[in-house]
Amino acid sequence: MRDRLIDCDVHNVVSSDAALLPYLPDRWRRHLELTGSRTFSPFVKGYAYPKAAPLASRRDAWPPSGGPPGSDLDFMRTQLLDAYDVEFAVLNCLYRAPEQRYDVYGAALAAAVNDWQVECWLERDPRLRASITVPFESPALAAAEIDRAAAHPGFVQVLLYPRTQQPLGKRHYWPIYEAACRAGLPVGIHAASTTPGPITAAGWPSYYIEDHTGLAVAFQAQVISLIMEGVFDRFPDLQIVLLEGGFAWVPPLMQRLDALHHRLHDEVPDLQHPPSHYLRHRIRITTQPMEEPERPGDLVPLLHEVGQDILMFSTDYPHWDFDNPHRAFQTRVPADLHRRIMYDNARAQYRFTS
Amino acid sequence: MRDRLIDCDVHNVVSSDAALLPYLPDRWRRHLELTGSRTFSPFVKGYAYPKAAPLASRRDAWPPSGGPPGSDLDFMRTQLLDAYDVEFAVLNCLYRAPEQRYDVYGAALAAAVNDWQVECWLERDPRLRASITVPFESPALAAAEIDRAAAHPGFVQVLLYPRTQQPLGKRHYWPIYEAACRAGLPVGIHAASTTPGPITAAGWPSYYIEDHTGLAVAFQAQVISLIMEGVFDRFPDLQIVLLEGGFAWVPPLMQRLDALHHRLHDEVPDLQHPPSHYLRHRIRITTQPMEEPERPGDLVPLLHEVGQDILMFSTDYPHWDFDNPHRAFQTRVPADLHRRIMYDNARAQYRFTS
Repeated sequence: MRDRLIDCDVHNVVSSDAALLPYLPDRWRRHLELTGSRTFSPFVKGYAYPKAAPLASRRDAWPPSGGPPGSDLDFMRTQLLDAYDVEFAVLNCLYRAPEQRYDVYGAALAAAVNDWQVECWLERDPRLRASITVPFESPALAAAEIDRAAAHPGFVQVLLYPRTQQPLGKRHYWPIYEAACRAGLPVGIHAASTTPGPITAAGWPSYYIEDHTGLAVAFQAQVISLIMEGVFDRFPDLQIVLLEGGFAWVPPLMQRLDALHHRLHDEVPDLQHPPSHYLRHRIRITTQPMEEPERPGDLVPLLHEVGQDILMFSTDYPHWDFDNPHRAFQTRVPADLHRRIMYDNARAQYRFTS
Repeated sequence: MRDRLIDCDVHNVVSSDAALLPYLPDRWRRHLELTGSRTFSPFVKGYAYPKAAPLASRRDAWPPSGGPPGSDLDFMRTQLLDAYDVEFAVLNCLYRAPEQRYDVYGAALAAAVNDWQVECWLERDPRLRASITVPFESPALAAAEIDRAAAHPGFVQVLLYPRTQQPLGKRHYWPIYEAACRAGLPVGIHAASTTPGPITAAGWPSYYIEDHTGLAVAFQAQVISLIMEGVFDRFPDLQIVLLEGGFAWVPPLMQRLDALHHRLHDEVPDLQHPPSHYLRHRIRITTQPMEEPERPGDLVPLLHEVGQDILMFSTDYPHWDFDNPHRAFQTRVPADLHRRIMYDNARAQYRFTS
């Protein structure tokens, strides 16, 4: 018998701007019609993905109804929810609201996305939960949207990105963490970008492979920042979920951070614990893209080293690098650990009850 | 008889970190001794200036007492205040507090700089006034320092830079404007940088000439941002002073902004006035480095076009590009306009009474 399954990273997609219009007040509908979208990084979306996989999607994920992959709930049921008997799926909508240069407009788009999620997704399938889209580069506006949207019980997370204008530990973003704690929600960080500059610390890379791999580097920078800036001490109820950032980097990073902290704790005298403490207790990580060690058997020691409570399974449906729940592990994982990763950890983190 | 003279941009310099220690609490003294300075742009200061003019200073400005130019009040009296019969001089201390990556430390350094300014400068010569140094990339901390420091009547301005992490009109910086209005002080923007990235929108330039000229471009970006983000509408008492950014770019910029606003005002429906209105009523600009048109006589029409109330004279003492108050204009300026620029406009802006 298979383990019960929670999928922590599924992408629902706004089929076109027209689909959002019913959720926008007149003022912002006019603005959308007048200006469309003016983002910090206008070209990132356009060329970051391989041409062979438009919208970074599985070739078989284009629904017969005609919209883009992820836009049709019935087709998502067929390909994902029913096919793998998913008990709960967490939707992370990556609509371009947080990247808008005009922040009040970004906030209006985020609110429209969230209302659209409630009406077209959360209210239509009891297995669905969703992350709140927020204009996080304007934290005060983001906090207001969290306060508003969290009233619906289908929202289980606040959504940020790992490539940001400042490291996410900075005081600038604290109103978001405050609002998330007020709502009792974790903060998820999902692969995407709002940075107006190059997407790596060394400038713009040439290849998609570099972009995709570089995400793991970006997540590390954010984890270092969140821990060292004291965010977890400041917000004792805050939980962070890293989505699509990998996890093999966790053990070496924590070792180095702990060692440095041991020798240089005078630089951060207010930090309450060694860095790895925060990772163990306050951070959760989704599995896709699943790590694939050269020797498949090395995966299990890695899973243990990261921690049996840390990892939560995800497919990343409908993207091209989808992890099939039946085949994601290329080696045999002990039953207890497997069950935690596929189900228990996510159920505890998001407080799912069925 | 010469016009009375106010010098709106003079640099007092902290002779060494040791001079600040008496103004730092134990915690931050230890931090300074442990870490020194870790700034966003560690190399900018080191190579931006021509080697022939260390610290960007006049070669004759090194005081006999041994410190760097601008560090010795007696020598400043000899070379500037007495030499030109300066009635008031506004000190803009560019100590590296705002550039600190660790914002709470930057705030502590800023407070120390301000206390040092009170004790070593403002209380020692009745002609001196000063700008408040603030860690402006952490606006909440900056606002707190404004509230604290503004209690001393010698502070007449809050000091920001034109190369920042975000355009200064963004909501992020609004707590600073709110605090400045609370204190009844204008906000000055003086040539310098906190950006962690390249200092121009096209990347890192090769030459000091490009850096110096690029400042005028940076100031334009900030003026566009401050106006278009509605900062002046939001803070009706806010006055902005642009220091060392030039002013020849003002008329063409305002014309283009007004024309675009006329055609695209739907994009910014909340803006109360045409853009040039805000420049005329809410922005003041210091003269150094004085514009030098190819035909010297063209300066006067330019001065008129910018506006007779806008410009305020400055020397930039002790820097190498010092403007001599007796020789700054390379052409004859009408007496009334000359008096406004040398004295009246600054006196009104800073509310000097003698």
